[in-house]
Amino acid sequence: MTHLLIIGGSDAGISAALRARELDSSVDVTVVVADSFPNYSICGIPFYLSGEVPDWRNLAHRTAAEITATGINLLLNHTAQTIDPDQKSVKVVDRQGQVQWLSYDKLILGTGAVPIQPPIQGLDIPGVFLLHSMEDSFAVHQYLTTHAPKTAVIVGSGYIGLEMADALTHRGIAVTLVGHSPTVMKTVDPNFGQLIAEEMQRHGVEAINSVEIKAIEQIGKDLAVSGSGGFHKTADMVLVAVGVKPLTSLASSAGLKIGMRGAFQVNRQMETNVPDIYAAGDCVETWHRLLNQYTYLPLGTTAHKQGRIAGENAVGGNQEFAGTLGTQVVKVFDLAIARTGLRDTEATSAGFNPVTFEFATWDRKVYYPGAHKLHFRITGDKENGQLLGVQIVGHYQGEVAKRIDIFATALFHNMKVDELNQLDLSYTPPFSSPWDPVQMSAQAWVKQQILSVH
Amino acid sequence: MTHLLIIGGSDAGISAALRARELDSSVDVTVVVADSFPNYSICGIPFYLSGEVPDWRNLAHRTAAEITATGINLLLNHTAQTIDPDQKSVKVVDRQGQVQWLSYDKLILGTGAVPIQPPIQGLDIPGVFLLHSMEDSFAVHQYLTTHAPKTAVIVGSGYIGLEMADALTHRGIAVTLVGHSPTVMKTVDPNFGQLIAEEMQRHGVEAINSVEIKAIEQIGKDLAVSGSGGFHKTADMVLVAVGVKPLTSLASSAGLKIGMRGAFQVNRQMETNVPDIYAAGDCVETWHRLLNQYTYLPLGTTAHKQGRIAGENAVGGNQEFAGTLGTQVVKVFDLAIARTGLRDTEATSAGFNPVTFEFATWDRKVYYPGAHKLHFRITGDKENGQLLGVQIVGHYQGEVAKRIDIFATALFHNMKVDELNQLDLSYTPPFSSPWDPVQMSAQAWVKQQILSVH
Repeated sequence: MTHLLIIGGSDAGISAALRARELDSSVDVTVVVADSFPNYSICGIPFYLSGEVPDWRNLAHRTAAEITATGINLLLNHTAQTIDPDQKSVKVVDRQGQVQWLSYDKLILGTGAVPIQPPIQGLDIPGVFLLHSMEDSFAVHQYLTTHAPKTAVIVGSGYIGLEMADALTHRGIAVTLVGHSPTVMKTVDPNFGQLIAEEMQRHGVEAINSVEIKAIEQIGKDLAVSGSGGFHKTADMVLVAVGVKPLTSLASSAGLKIGMRGAFQVNRQMETNVPDIYAAGDCVETWHRLLNQYTYLPLGTTAHKQGRIAGENAVGGNQEFAGTLGTQVVKVFDLAIARTGLRDTEATSAGFNPVTFEFATWDRKVYYPGAHKLHFRITGDKENGQLLGVQIVGHYQGEVAKRIDIFATALFHNMKVDELNQLDLSYTPPFSSPWDPVQMSAQAWVKQQILSVH
Repeated sequence: MTHLLIIGGSDAGISAALRARELDSSVDVTVVVADSFPNYSICGIPFYLSGEVPDWRNLAHRTAAEITATGINLLLNHTAQTIDPDQKSVKVVDRQGQVQWLSYDKLILGTGAVPIQPPIQGLDIPGVFLLHSMEDSFAVHQYLTTHAPKTAVIVGSGYIGLEMADALTHRGIAVTLVGHSPTVMKTVDPNFGQLIAEEMQRHGVEAINSVEIKAIEQIGKDLAVSGSGGFHKTADMVLVAVGVKPLTSLASSAGLKIGMRGAFQVNRQMETNVPDIYAAGDCVETWHRLLNQYTYLPLGTTAHKQGRIAGENAVGGNQEFAGTLGTQVVKVFDLAIARTGLRDTEATSAGFNPVTFEFATWDRKVYYPGAHKLHFRITGDKENGQLLGVQIVGHYQGEVAKRIDIFATALFHNMKVDELNQLDLSYTPPFSSPWDPVQMSAQAWVKQQILSVH
């Protein structure tokens, strides 16, 4: 019997376990989980903390019972400390310090990522939180319910910061969002950051850019947050969300190579450099389909895909990860913000000759009730017309998420911008126009190119 | 100066005119329009008649003024009667019977389609309507406002019939929908027809299947509708919507060949068999990308694409129509119903070896407020796993329309069902799951295939 040992019970680890058992029910699969919450939707934490999801248990993609019912063994509240690749064994320890060694034929690492702790004084003061795991979110939830904060400072204007600004506003908390970048959500172009900032303002969130937070101090009952440029703000709570880094402390014992941004180096079969050890998810570097190289882009969707491939290959398969396009969507108040592929700077660094054109149109026929504007930024190569990337901002009921996916599917197939007009997309006035906005924005990009050449 | 003459001022004709002028502003373009309403969104008529679009003028894709501002000449209220291909001239007549001959260097026919008049006695009785043009819709609108009907029978359970059932219900009219097929909307599989019928019922529409309507009689103030199987129903108005047929009366004078279902025969450059005469839109047969042959599939999206290609080629271009996939979506009450590609019977007749699997899941993470079930029917080839077609039914806010478009884009590129799992689609709990329902349904199809082989 093959023993498959998996370290990590989040998206990558559980996907690997399920896929392995699905393909070969004779395999013995054990998943080592650091806490009591295997297979939780950590992307759902903001909606638990907002109150929109009253019961945290509903955040489980699957319950522990559902997982074990498939024949997977779960070892909860255990952390892996060392890998002995010669003995093919992993040392794990429980919360009481009890040690055991688990042997494996195949090992999959899905250790995930941890929040970056920025160099800010006072991160350990009560009322200051970093948010990543279910246990982090319980701590925040308890603070929200017992202290009933009226004001909050959120440090970090990336998508977690934005989602939490929405979530805390939903609870009636007055939020100040502070970021170091010149516009919020620096993963989209500044014009779109501005649209998002306006949406924040409409909902009462104070968004402050270009500030580096230096310190948090407890002054009486207040938390005093200070930063560059004379920034100073007091609040009842502080959330810090400035990104994550891969958790790869197991690397040294096993001789695992480290690649981009400190993540495990893997090939597209999700194999590490050490025989019979695979890795997947937020702890690994990720193949980018357009950049044609590895990058670090931790996303739940990618973790599921890579975990599934690692699980399949660990039981004898030969699947290859097709690569990320960095497709993402986030909902902030009434806006959906989505992107896929490359922006100008990224495309340029990858050797493309990009040009980006912005275009706005309606999500449905404008005569149909409830029409909203969609804003597109299309990036294409000005030499060969290849589609390189797309950003969309629009109303959350404007099918923004699945429109970015049409572009993502086109990017997967290396389509030219102009070729999007050949796609047979659906139309009825409540949902689109005879040329979908996807195609109208492509036409606008092409027309702009023709004009700029003449 | 090149003279481009276009017969027909709806989607195909205006698209052709705009494209020709966009590419070559030296071309003299004249569009002959049968009524006073060029470039109207006839797909929007149900929403005008429902009252959701109060002003019919808003149904214009563009106003006549916007069209003429691009340098296009509009000849309104003129009908083409004869083409003389030797003289390169077209005889047109206005509503007063005044005749003139218009010469052309290039001619594009976008004559569209007309409603099929089924063999039903009494179609000419006041209160009985066929619905296709703006003028038809004015007649219906006037009847609705002056006669205030309380009950209506709609003959035909295709998508126009369904949209009009929704529209008239929206006005407070009690609707009976009668179709000859065994389930409503025979363009989707019967299981989905059943879901749609249940939605009709929830909104008070009586849907009756498998009935052939024979006669409509005026009995006092009532219209008595009778049909096969003893069907009998009285109502205050009757709408007949049993499909359309291409309008090709110009064919014989010009020696134009007729192809599928009586439509003009064209190649993929939208050229007819007669030199310098192109045709596009609802009056032509259409290349099907998966069937690999011509079919008759009149859709506004296709008319726009074909018109654009005809316009480009008429001024010296060499574009080729990439083919239809029959992608369609319709909103009926709270449901969106969409399809792309082939169903079992169609795929079998085209030489594929199809199998269809039905799967339901949530449009977003189920914990997020407002989650609704989406129903998928995936058709793939059981030999090589190629994706052949998809049908989706779900809540109108479940991004059904753009989810079918992800499949349509995949079909365009001949993807295998299993390969959909490689697509980097967007995710956030309010809009999707880490595997989008598009991918979950693909996985379900693949798993079913594996099970059925063992």
